[in-house]
Amino acid sequence: MNAIGVDVGGTKIAAGLVTPGGKLLNEARYPTASEPSELLDSLARAIGEAAANDDTDAACVAVAGLLMAKESKVVFSPNLRAIEDLPLKSELERRTGLTVTVENDANAAAWGEFVFGAGSEVENLLFVTLGTGVGGGVILDGNLLRGSQGAGGELGHTTLHATGPRCGCGNRGCFEIMASGLAIERRARRAAADKPDSELGKAVAAKGFSGEEVTELARKGDAPSISVLRETGVWLGIGIAGFVNVFNPEVVAIGGGAAAAGDLILEPARREVYLRARSPSRDLAEIKPATLGEKSGMLGAAALARNASGWIALEAG
Amino acid sequence: MNAIGVDVGGTKIAAGLVTPGGKLLNEARYPTASEPSELLDSLARAIGEAAANDDTDAACVAVAGLLMAKESKVVFSPNLRAIEDLPLKSELERRTGLTVTVENDANAAAWGEFVFGAGSEVENLLFVTLGTGVGGGVILDGNLLRGSQGAGGELGHTTLHATGPRCGCGNRGCFEIMASGLAIERRARRAAADKPDSELGKAVAAKGFSGEEVTELARKGDAPSISVLRETGVWLGIGIAGFVNVFNPEVVAIGGGAAAAGDLILEPARREVYLRARSPSRDLAEIKPATLGEKSGMLGAAALARNASGWIALEAG
Repeated sequence: MNAIGVDVGGTKIAAGLVTPGGKLLNEARYPTASEPSELLDSLARAIGEAAANDDTDAACVAVAGLLMAKESKVVFSPNLRAIEDLPLKSELERRTGLTVTVENDANAAAWGEFVFGAGSEVENLLFVTLGTGVGGGVILDGNLLRGSQGAGGELGHTTLHATGPRCGCGNRGCFEIMASGLAIERRARRAAADKPDSELGKAVAAKGFSGEEVTELARKGDAPSISVLRETGVWLGIGIAGFVNVFNPEVVAIGGGAAAAGDLILEPARREVYLRARSPSRDLAEIKPATLGEKSGMLGAAALARNASGWIALEAG
Repeated sequence: MNAIGVDVGGTKIAAGLVTPGGKLLNEARYPTASEPSELLDSLARAIGEAAANDDTDAACVAVAGLLMAKESKVVFSPNLRAIEDLPLKSELERRTGLTVTVENDANAAAWGEFVFGAGSEVENLLFVTLGTGVGGGVILDGNLLRGSQGAGGELGHTTLHATGPRCGCGNRGCFEIMASGLAIERRARRAAADKPDSELGKAVAAKGFSGEEVTELARKGDAPSISVLRETGVWLGIGIAGFVNVFNPEVVAIGGGAAAAGDLILEPARREVYLRARSPSRDLAEIKPATLGEKSGMLGAAALARNASGWIALEAG
């Protein structure tokens, strides 16, 4: 049966009707409201429009933030404060008539890549998403790692550099502060200050500079931009190396905006994993780009909706 | 049915016949041979003696080292080179007539603490053992984390301090090099050099100093010894904090020789987890001593032997 996956971000809500094979049949989008009751209204409306006349009976709502997914409770969502403590499950079930579950967005995206994307041929997948922050999710023997409250799979705040820069979470030297899109931007600004006459220096001096330009400049051969991505890739590799030892995955899939840098980030990451992780795990793990792009959360949420227990991978076909 | 758990260490082999409730009925010990065929002989003999006249049909051999447990293959065991690449499963099955499986010793110990010890009341357990090195194992929703080859659960070589001291594994700033018994000894020697007139200074100057004395001296109020344990506890906490975010466990059980320092190490670790990990996971996780001591590996191996799939926790009683 088809199911609804909903991706709730800081700026927009996207709800999609998805087939068991991962085809997106219908999609509805709304801006994310900052007021709780409006947010519930637009979520219910988006789900209803995506469902249209389909006989689907389940939806899963993927939310950026710290969740107790097993209670369908959003504990903390810095860019989506309106969603915290909303009775999402009960209210959306009442309004839509569907069975509704709630999941962390990166866990849903990991599940999407596992069922339909870069991990669809394996049973053990580590998924890391490099966006503004660093998120991720883990599939172990076909099961989504969720932990006792469904708050698990939170990879981005593991300490890699105990005396490193302070992260927004309060910790120092987290995976996130060392390897995220914001880390690229921070390094780019520093590199630009060092080399103001480089292409990167000029780009940073111009108005509206964003970290995404670093990849474009690196592709054109700008040396400081290449260095910025290499340094970020090294930190990505340091983070992945530890998780490769811990999870012994077959595939490590890298998604999120910063993953657009491709091998400019992935090659230094692979080298670092080779240097820092251990055999046999490091020899097995294939580090490669995620394949679903920004749809991974929606598709994964739909697959989770169909699989209410969340623990057994259903046949996708 | 009763089962045999075997703990193979660098100096001795201990095989025990264990009831489903965790009672050790019978135990056989042999020194660990350094020659492969002698090692197989003594393993088979220890298993046979422990089994005695019991009608047990299964044994699990817990080995320190890097394993592909799903193939019963020991890839690398620095203190037990004779065991590498031995056809342990097939040879021991032939000689004993039992079904034999092979597991990493820290994973077996984690399973022991889960079934019979500090984690017996929960479904999600993080077990960390502080010995010469740092090992560990993870139970998620009642399943032992093993990864695709059974090489997973390797917690000790996660990078906590990317520019830190070089570990034996080749990496820098691993959990192990920062928080193991050897880390205590390294810090004790440095502290002794700084304060040669302290109790610790005198102990280090005397012949045959070992890290275990640091705990005794700290208990007697020696300030440099207390500092050494506190610093080690901080690193233990930095390591645990990341894993608390990732696994969202109900209990974190600390075992191994260095855990004898108790709250001298655990209190700074708890504080660091509070500072570095995130809600709701950090609020849930109870950090406490393991309860099975050095028997955890043998007891856990026996429980795994009874549960050949290794994935579902059987009723222990």
